[in-house]
Order: sequence, then structure tokens, then C-alpha cells
Amino acid sequence: MSALDPVLARLDTDLEPSLERLFDLLRIRSISTDPAFAADCHRGAEWLVADLRSIGFDATLRETPGHPMVVAHHEGPRGAPHVLFYGHYDVQPVDPLELWDEDPFDPQLREFEGHRVITGRGSADDKGQLMTFVEACRAWKAVHGSLPCRVTILFEGEEESGSASLKPFLEANAEELKADFALVCDTSMWDRDTPSICTSLRGLVGEEITIKAADRDLHSGLYGGAAANPIRILARILADIHDAEGRVTIPGFYDGVEETPAQVLKSWETLGETAETFLGPIGLSLPAGEAGRSVLELTWARPTAEFNGIVGGYTGKGFKTVIAAEASAKVSFRLVHKQDPAKIREAFKAFVEARIPADCAVEFHPHGGSPAIQLPYDSPFLARAKGALSDEWPKAAVMTGGGGSIPVVGDFQTYLGMDSLLVGFGLADDRIHSPNEKYDLASFAKGQRAWARILAALAG
Amino acid sequence: MSALDPVLARLDTDLEPSLERLFDLLRIRSISTDPAFAADCHRGAEWLVADLRSIGFDATLRETPGHPMVVAHHEGPRGAPHVLFYGHYDVQPVDPLELWDEDPFDPQLREFEGHRVITGRGSADDKGQLMTFVEACRAWKAVHGSLPCRVTILFEGEEESGSASLKPFLEANAEELKADFALVCDTSMWDRDTPSICTSLRGLVGEEITIKAADRDLHSGLYGGAAANPIRILARILADIHDAEGRVTIPGFYDGVEETPAQVLKSWETLGETAETFLGPIGLSLPAGEAGRSVLELTWARPTAEFNGIVGGYTGKGFKTVIAAEASAKVSFRLVHKQDPAKIREAFKAFVEARIPADCAVEFHPHGGSPAIQLPYDSPFLARAKGALSDEWPKAAVMTGGGGSIPVVGDFQTYLGMDSLLVGFGLADDRIHSPNEKYDLASFAKGQRAWARILAALAG
Repeated sequence: MSALDPVLARLDTDLEPSLERLFDLLRIRSISTDPAFAADCHRGAEWLVADLRSIGFDATLRETPGHPMVVAHHEGPRGAPHVLFYGHYDVQPVDPLELWDEDPFDPQLREFEGHRVITGRGSADDKGQLMTFVEACRAWKAVHGSLPCRVTILFEGEEESGSASLKPFLEANAEELKADFALVCDTSMWDRDTPSICTSLRGLVGEEITIKAADRDLHSGLYGGAAANPIRILARILADIHDAEGRVTIPGFYDGVEETPAQVLKSWETLGETAETFLGPIGLSLPAGEAGRSVLELTWARPTAEFNGIVGGYTGKGFKTVIAAEASAKVSFRLVHKQDPAKIREAFKAFVEARIPADCAVEFHPHGGSPAIQLPYDSPFLARAKGALSDEWPKAAVMTGGGGSIPVVGDFQTYLGMDSLLVGFGLADDRIHSPNEKYDLASFAKGQRAWARILAALAG
Repeated sequence: MSALDPVLARLDTDLEPSLERLFDLLRIRSISTDPAFAADCHRGAEWLVADLRSIGFDATLRETPGHPMVVAHHEGPRGAPHVLFYGHYDVQPVDPLELWDEDPFDPQLREFEGHRVITGRGSADDKGQLMTFVEACRAWKAVHGSLPCRVTILFEGEEESGSASLKPFLEANAEELKADFALVCDTSMWDRDTPSICTSLRGLVGEEITIKAADRDLHSGLYGGAAANPIRILARILADIHDAEGRVTIPGFYDGVEETPAQVLKSWETLGETAETFLGPIGLSLPAGEAGRSVLELTWARPTAEFNGIVGGYTGKGFKTVIAAEASAKVSFRLVHKQDPAKIREAFKAFVEARIPADCAVEFHPHGGSPAIQLPYDSPFLARAKGALSDEWPKAAVMTGGGGSIPVVGDFQTYLGMDSLLVGFGLADDRIHSPNEKYDLASFAKGQRAWARILAALAG
């Protein structure tokens, strides 16, 4: 019998208590973007420190100018690799609350389309995921009193709000946090039967722009036709960002974007994802990005400009014939390959400023900024993790790309000189960032077993 | 000596008692929008009925589902025109009360920037104005025992709260109210020395559009580049509405729009209103409408498309990398000349629908719809009124336009088939709808004399 088998058995028998622990964590309202929940975020970090200590980690809560970090260390056998495991305990806001079937902070086990699922904000993104690793460590410790690798854990509390403290924290604590490579658990499986390792992630640049026109709201009858309307200026800026083919028109935007190798595009074709399968479940059918590219290429290997929010003027019921004093939009860019976030931000700001009338003004509020990452396809750790994942699920693991940013992966590269293996057990229908977020019970249970396997495989 | 001179003399000697009467009316708290003041509104109507009866009008209070109307009739000489005089006795709310220097319902005579003014809510809008006409009638009656024209009076009590009862009342009492034309006293002078007659008012069409894309909010990382973004669709629609010259591009939009006669444009040029004088006080300097036209032409004689409100996606603090399920905008069009509100609405809806991707949808919610008003420049009554006004003030009366709607004028056109002459004596600094509303004593005194002159002039 291998050292792994009793660990897997232990995880199976310990599933119910592991769920209780996850529910405890999910009940903490750790919404990082809203200052009203700062104390809840702190409680989330405290909870994790206590739990990690209870299984023998040297765990500490580290204050930052924002929400705290959790750092924990555990020794491993001489010669085994040293891994840094990363997750985040903060969650997205929950509004609109009325669209939730359950209280987002009172997790439940429910049936959803024939599967048992864990409900609640953060169940999939990312509390449920990070706890799969903690539970794997707990089982290794319970069975063997040790871990097969040396493990450092970093849990962040600002992933959903721009990770303002992460870079300075990595820089200040680089020596303590540096490992052979990182394990980042914030991604999804290809499908319910097929685990995956994500080998590329898009970067992100966000910028909020506020157009300011008159110094007060105006009556649109008295001033309409003479006074600048900030919504009109804003609509023109946003409309100018894409051409008729869906390409972004900002000068220099495509600098550093590479064409994806033909064999990679071919392997993605075999996955069977089409516009119908990708967009159908969300009520759409037509790819809206650059013409002539597949949905997988569009979301994994092409950059985008998206408008995440817009507001201006009267937005209540009925009508108010007003010309607003200002209007704003939140704009974000997904980056690939070698696109430079700082250059993209400056190019966007110049693009906006060129479209502001001389008697109006624009204010910018930056948000986030991280380059894309691209893992070397020939990494040996990648091969071992792929084997371990393939042992747990019916189908072999596939290599995918990720459309969303996980800025920490770029930061690990920049500040700690480490590659990351992106392994996660979310499913496409988890509704992360939306009402009714859920995490399949199978993701949670098999995710724990997969980490137990990966730790064994990495140790060799 | 003309019949007019002793009437003017009588008005001069009667100024103090006329002020007492106005103050009595101003003390009545006839705030129409707040049900708590319903009894006060009723008292306002009762006061007017009693005052009109005291000078020989056949005056009655007419109950409506809202606040009552006052209708009064007085015969005139055979062959003289029959005029319908309109004003409103209801007033705006007075909050924030702490910004008033005087009790809004305890009118006073005060000095304001070198002029004697009547303080109080309703002093300019519209009790002070409507009483100028009543005083003119009183003086004609006192001196001659008769009026030079046949006069019907309609005082409304819901002008500041949507005029819900007006249309049905006009429809039900059309025969009784129909006259040769209407005199509407709810506007301003061009400046302190220059009376004006407003000869055009823009119409209005409003439409709220809601673009619907995916059936839920999406993570912009996972779906960005593949899924339709309703804010992008909306921005494209709004941006397409104006061309680079500020013209509206909706097909057929300019049908029925006439070029303003050169001599009218020339007379507007003499008024000295420039982009600086018009836009400077609101912090702007550059006309934003159709290129090459003056601010007066843009606001009085050109149609517009304005965006009164927009909302979609995440609009709270910070960022949420979401692709929204829907986004909406409130769009309104100001109409001139013979533009047809129903056709404009249909043309706009077709324009929007042509820009909705096949897998997305749009919902429309109509708001308002009234044609523009344009008084024929060659109306003989207009010429007579203009002459009478020019006799009273240092400068000749000018013909102006109005950028906003005055619904009653359209309603008189629709239900009674009458043109309206818009003559009022307010000033730009009267602060109507705001704290410290005032009406210049000169507006009140010379307004009475002006109506005495106009009645004489209209009689020919």
C-alpha cells in the first residue's frame, strides 16, 4: 500500500467535518471591495490562521495597509520540492441580493441539476477551492504526521478588489515566500469529468473614467443643443474603442500580442467547444469579439476591452429631462502574452483625453494592472501534476488557457521568480461573481483527493 | 385722451392695494405636489374666485380629481376678440427652508441688487404674474365699467405637479373655454428693459431603452471577448445618434424642420447672447450642438437628441469585472416646427433595433410625446401685442423661442384648436423653484400696465 492510499481514505471519511469547516469560513462576509466589511475580512484571515495552526502549520496573520495576508509554513522531507500554495479568502459583493435563492452567507448543501452543490458567495471563488488544499494537508498530517513536500501557504484578502497590498508584500517578504514553484488554486476544470491545468492567463488593466461637463445638472429643454452632455461624450469614447471587426482601436494596443501556435489552436479545437456550447448556456449565440476567431481563442489568447459599469444622469423610475453634470464608466482590458499594462493604461488615457471637448474634463481612477502569464509547455512539474490529476478523474487532464487574470501569478513571476501551476476544481456553471454562486460537492471532495495525489507526485 | 390712459393712471394709483391683494394670495400655501397642502390649494382657488367675482367676472371653482380649476368669464364688445387667459395658482415646494432669507409664505417688499422686489414662493411663478392680468381687468372695469375684449380666465392648480387634470378638463369643457387665442402668462422678459413674446416652444419625445444580452451578469475574464456586452451595444447606439457635426443621424429626423427665417436669426443676433454669456454661467464655453449655429438658434429653433440617464453593470465604489446582463438609457428628443413625435419615436426605435445583435434584445419604455409649438410670425394679434409691450418698456419687445415645453400650450392647440401668446414679466434672476424666489416690483407694476395696453391693442 502506498503512503497516498490511507490519506485518500481519510479524506473520504472526513468529508462531513471538512464541509462544516468550509461552511464556517463561508459565513464570514469577507467582501474586500467595500470598506464596510473590513472587520469581516480580518475575521476571515483570523479563522484561517487558527485552522492552519490546528494542523501544525506555523501560521501568522500579517497586517497590510488593506486586508491582512495569511502566511503559513510547514517543513517537508529533505530533497522534496518546496511549494507555495496560494488562494484568496475575500469574495465579490453580493448585490443584487434579491436575485439569490439562498442567503449568500448562509451556505447550504442543495441539489442543482442532479448534483449536490455547496451554495454561497465564495463557495467556488475561492474559499471552497483553497480549503481543498488545507484539507489535503490535514489528512496527510493526520495519517503520517508529516507532509510529502515542504509547503508554504499564502492566503490573500484583496484579490477581488485589486490586490493593492500584494506586490509590496511579496517584495518585502520575498525571501520567506520564495519556493520552487507555486500552486495556485483559483481556476476551473475543463468539465465535470476532465481536470485541467491552466497554462496561460490574461492580464488586466482597469480604469474608471468620469467625464465632467457643466458645473451642475441642467434642464435639457433650456440647455439641450447648446450644452455639452457628458453621457454623449462618454458614449462616443466607448463606441470608438472597437472597430466594426471587434478589434480594439487604441493605438499600440496590440503591441506584444502573439499569434497562438497552430498546434495549440488545433488542440483547443479538439475540446469540442463552439460558440453554441460556450454561449448557449448564458443565453447568447454569436461571438462578440474579433471576427474569425474561435471562442476559446477569444477568451484564452486574445486581448479585450470591456465596459464593466456605466452611470450618469437620472436613473430612477420615469423620466427627468436633465443634462447631467457628469457621467462615468468602468473600463477594463484583458491582456495576453507580452502586452504591457502600464503602456496600455497610458494609451487608453491618451485615447480618452483626445475625445474630451476643450470645455469639459475627465478624471481617471486606476484599478489593477497585471501582465498576462504563459507557462512553458515543457515544465516537469506540469507533467507530474497532470498525471496526478488524471488519476483522480475519469478523463485525462487537459492544458487550457484562462480568460481571467490571476494577478498573483504574474506577481509570483516578477517578485519571486517563480512559475505557477494553476489547478482548480470549479465548474463553468458555478456563477462566480454572480448571484447563486455554488461549488459542487464533487469538486470539493475530489479536489481534496487531487491535492493529496499532487503532493505525493511532486515529491517523486 | 384715449380710453387707455385713465386705465394706466388708475393702475398707478392702485399699486399699493394691488400689492396687498397679491400678498394675500402669496400667503396661501398652495403647494400642489404635497397632499398635505391640498386644503391650501383649495383656498387658493376660492380666493381667486372671490376676487374675480368682486370685479364682475362670472367666476366658478371647478373640482377635479386633483386640485380645482378656476374658470371665469367676462363679456366684451361685439366684434372684439375673445381671449383665454391662463395662469396657475399652485407653487413649488419650499424645501430646503433654511436657505430662505424670508418666510416663503410671508411676502415682503425688499431691496435686491438695487431693485425693489416682492419676496416669497409663487411671487414670480406664477401668482405675481397672473395677478398682473387680474389687476389690468380690475382697472378697466373701475374706469370704464367694461373690458375691451371678451375674456375667459383659466387658473390651474396642478402646473407644478404634472397637470394631471388639465387635459381631461379641457376636453370636457372645450366649448366653454374655446376663444380666439390664449394669453399664457408664465414666462420671462428678455431682460429688465426688454419685454418679449415667446413664439416657439420645443416639443418632446422620450424613450427609455434597455439592451438585454446574456441572461445573467458574467465574469468579464471568463467571457470577455466572446460574450456580447450590453454597455458596448448601448454606447454604439448612442454614439451613432450624432454625426461629427452634431447633427442627429436618425433617418427622417429632420422631416418637418424648417430653417429659421434670416430676419428672425438676425433679430436674435442683436440680443447679444453668445456662447460665453449663455454657457459661461454653467461652467462651459463651447456650443455642443449642430456646428455653425448660435446658442439661441440651437436652443430655440433646432431639434436635439439628449441622453438624460444611463446605467448598466457595476456602478458602486471600486471595480467589479463583470459583463452586465443589461444596460439602459433614457433618451429624449426636443422637437421643432412640424416634426411628428410619433414618427420620430418610430424612427428612433428602428434605428436602435438595427443595432441590436441577433442574439440580444431591446425593450422600449415610452415617455411623453408632444409636438413643438410655432406661432405664425405674421399673426396680427402677435403684432398688436408686440406693439403694446414696446410702448410700456424702454426697449422694443423681442420675439424669442423656448427650449423647453410648456404643456398647456400644446394642450390648448390639441383640445381647443387655439394658438397661444406667451407673455410674462419674470426675470432670469427670479429663482423660481429655488429658495428666495422673488418678483420685481417693476415686473408687477409694469406687467399690469402692459396687459391693460395689450387688451386695448387686441381690441384694435
